[in-house]
Amino acid sequence: MELSYTAAPTTLKFLVVIFYYLFDMETAEFKEFAKAMTDYIAEYLDNIRDRQVVPSVKPGYLRPLVPEQAPQQPEPWTAVMADIERVVMSGVTHWHSPRFHAYFPTANSYPAIVADMLSGAIACIGFTWIASPACTELEVVMMDWLGQMLGLPDVFLAKSGGEGGGVIQGTASEATLVALLGAKARTMQRVKEEHPEWSENDILSKLVGYCNKQAHSSVERAGLLGGIKLRTLLPDNKRRLRGDTLKKAMEEDIRNGLIPFYVVATLGTTSSCTFDALDEIADVCIPHNVWVHVDAAYAGSAFICPEYRYLMKGIEKADSFNFNPHKWMLVNFDCSAMWLKQPKWIVDAFNVDPLYLKHDQQGSAPDYRHWQIPLGRRFRSLKLWFVLRLFGVENLQKHIRKQISLAHYFEKLCVSDERFELFEEVTMGLVCFRLKGDNPINEELLKRINGRGKIHLVPSKIDDVYFLRLAICSRYTEDSDINISWEEIKLSADEVIKSAKK
Amino acid sequence: MELSYTAAPTTLKFLVVIFYYLFDMETAEFKEFAKAMTDYIAEYLDNIRDRQVVPSVKPGYLRPLVPEQAPQQPEPWTAVMADIERVVMSGVTHWHSPRFHAYFPTANSYPAIVADMLSGAIACIGFTWIASPACTELEVVMMDWLGQMLGLPDVFLAKSGGEGGGVIQGTASEATLVALLGAKARTMQRVKEEHPEWSENDILSKLVGYCNKQAHSSVERAGLLGGIKLRTLLPDNKRRLRGDTLKKAMEEDIRNGLIPFYVVATLGTTSSCTFDALDEIADVCIPHNVWVHVDAAYAGSAFICPEYRYLMKGIEKADSFNFNPHKWMLVNFDCSAMWLKQPKWIVDAFNVDPLYLKHDQQGSAPDYRHWQIPLGRRFRSLKLWFVLRLFGVENLQKHIRKQISLAHYFEKLCVSDERFELFEEVTMGLVCFRLKGDNPINEELLKRINGRGKIHLVPSKIDDVYFLRLAICSRYTEDSDINISWEEIKLSADEVIKSAKK
Repeated sequence: MELSYTAAPTTLKFLVVIFYYLFDMETAEFKEFAKAMTDYIAEYLDNIRDRQVVPSVKPGYLRPLVPEQAPQQPEPWTAVMADIERVVMSGVTHWHSPRFHAYFPTANSYPAIVADMLSGAIACIGFTWIASPACTELEVVMMDWLGQMLGLPDVFLAKSGGEGGGVIQGTASEATLVALLGAKARTMQRVKEEHPEWSENDILSKLVGYCNKQAHSSVERAGLLGGIKLRTLLPDNKRRLRGDTLKKAMEEDIRNGLIPFYVVATLGTTSSCTFDALDEIADVCIPHNVWVHVDAAYAGSAFICPEYRYLMKGIEKADSFNFNPHKWMLVNFDCSAMWLKQPKWIVDAFNVDPLYLKHDQQGSAPDYRHWQIPLGRRFRSLKLWFVLRLFGVENLQKHIRKQISLAHYFEKLCVSDERFELFEEVTMGLVCFRLKGDNPINEELLKRINGRGKIHLVPSKIDDVYFLRLAICSRYTEDSDINISWEEIKLSADEVIKSAKK
Repeated sequence: MELSYTAAPTTLKFLVVIFYYLFDMETAEFKEFAKAMTDYIAEYLDNIRDRQVVPSVKPGYLRPLVPEQAPQQPEPWTAVMADIERVVMSGVTHWHSPRFHAYFPTANSYPAIVADMLSGAIACIGFTWIASPACTELEVVMMDWLGQMLGLPDVFLAKSGGEGGGVIQGTASEATLVALLGAKARTMQRVKEEHPEWSENDILSKLVGYCNKQAHSSVERAGLLGGIKLRTLLPDNKRRLRGDTLKKAMEEDIRNGLIPFYVVATLGTTSSCTFDALDEIADVCIPHNVWVHVDAAYAGSAFICPEYRYLMKGIEKADSFNFNPHKWMLVNFDCSAMWLKQPKWIVDAFNVDPLYLKHDQQGSAPDYRHWQIPLGRRFRSLKLWFVLRLFGVENLQKHIRKQISLAHYFEKLCVSDERFELFEEVTMGLVCFRLKGDNPINEELLKRINGRGKIHLVPSKIDDVYFLRLAICSRYTEDSDINISWEEIKLSADEVIKSAKK
């Protein structure tokens, strides 16, 4: 280790030597610790099937397992490793077990874990280009790679040289909110020009947005946050928001003096994975200058397979599009991919530009701090880069196709048993099913299934019909796992039906 | 590997064997890759001093270095490793180099990196208690550990058994926004009761919040986001927001029919690290039921040292408090610690509760999804747990004290040279200084310093006085590094003064 500072007195040099000695010790310990953790992780994921999917702990279980206060003196890393099973794993719900069928999947892959190690080591905060050029630039290029994989129109890609581009948000909730703010800014400007006599508050109180009643709860929250009216509209009998419904609502609101400004089209609802009629919706919005945001949080990953792109027909008419590689495309949370045709509306809405964040290259590359709610941001594009290269597009397509085929396999088992019925057509990796009969018997069925502790599902309810959701979540899931889940469900159904007959 | 599904036909069994063979290969590769990355990281951080702190790349440098599209077939991990220096490191600003003095520090430590590996492997989304009990419960307990380390009043701690508690947010920007929404909800309820004849929009248009003109840009953004008026107030001649200034502004607004509802008190401003007079501010707010949020994003870490707690005098009167362990307490981004006296105001504001997120234990443990803007959340408390145990409180205190003493060392060098003056009293790890003279000479100074490429600083400007900020950022920084930075600054000053004399 050479120091260019040559005038150090002897005592200082001695201290530097001592420092490097301590420093090297710490590095050596890190290597041991990280390698032990690597082995632990490999062992955990290799044998995840053997663990009870949902722990049997009660609220408050953890506090008695750890001291009341942080230790004054450091502990050895081996002590921390020794506590992981006792304190943490005893209370973990194993989202990557093939026995986990709740919610939607969240991604987990080895390439993404290693990429996050590197991201943690570089630990830059990429709020401006100069704060770490690689952090911004790899993100710009990865969002182009990803956009091309999905077959997004060029107008969304930075490489096209137009206004459009992509950004990695933390979650789909943030993307929904960011799009709402962009829509608000664009509409405010237009209406102010048309009605210079109206105050900002007047205009704000007239704005109204729309989404499917089946849209994700985060859409409602975005409205609450932005302090804006959002109307939830009734879908058709296939749970799809249709153009004519939207048209009717918008015309009614316009007659009442309101200003439609924002529509969220959901591709793959959380409750039952249905797809709004994006093409129809966009056609209704365009004449009224209404911003169309597409929330494809879960299902968007499937668009890397060309055979599913019919579900995003009309995408070229949308203003923004979002999906979560951190759900179904093997990139660990958080990585929510968002594209905007005109990011300028967001950039302008957020443009608060103190001197300490200014730099010489402003304008020649995006400063992503203007594209998002928080100021800080990690080097998240590394995860995308590693995952795309180490799986390759074809293996990612295989992963999606396999998970969908597993859902269809479960569907086949389910419809072969005449006691069951499907609630919704199976399109992606989610099967919505129920016992023929009333809601209480299905509530009892879910209670028994989860009570047995072998597999984990969550329910949903649409139009007062309660049903069970079986999502294919783990990338380790095979036909044999589906057989096990199906046996578990059948056993519980036997019990429920038997006890109902008593 | 034993399968409990015993009825598998021979072909299925064969496929399972093939699968496990492939699967084991993948695990073996992961182990190699993660261990190689561990060695790379250790090498990177051990020798970070030798790297040029800000890269000399131009905007657009990265795109030609990578293919135009993602590969169809997987690449070996060794190919990715081989590209890290060429593609990524060539464009990285090294925030953890002792030559990096820009912005404020962001944390980086070995225990946090390893904790994130585990978080990535478990990869649960902790939006509700049942979604992974350990994820919620470790966070509750770690926030108590941390609160005690800072000497926060019991009313903020979950262990006290009252309403209060802590939560990990992504960034201070989010905490500021969450507090604003809580304040809005509390005030809306009160005013609705007092004035049932006022509409929600009426009330919203009357709300007004306050902060120091020197508060972080995210405060202004929170106001923009929430669609709420925020007044920035002039600080005293030591850049502190004082009680009397606030009192005057609030009384004026009340006379004009507005409703004060929210004040952000900044402890450690970004521009020059000054501290608002929290105690005075809180005394002004309490009679008017105004929510006091304390933003101590950077400086809050120092409160783990009792000798700095005088700077948060009055904290017991605040409604919410936030600081970023991911800045100065060796927990990698993102980990922004927030405590609330009455989280119910946030929980109610956000309460959108679809069936698929309900569970049997609601109410007996926090469901953190109601405490934050996004729905999803990573297992971030693991980082806190690892860092607190593997450093111990005393070493974390040593880290803070050492960084502050390094700032004072630089201060001493700076004032010993009569060409320089301090812009602000040095309290934490930030030194604000300038050449005696006008702004252009200081702008030229900064340009030369950064232009030489050895160290990196950013400027700020208050009341039209331009100054340079030298922040102690890297945990590797020693006196000898400060000497090098000082030599660089002196050399640039020599050049600037020489060329000014020409």
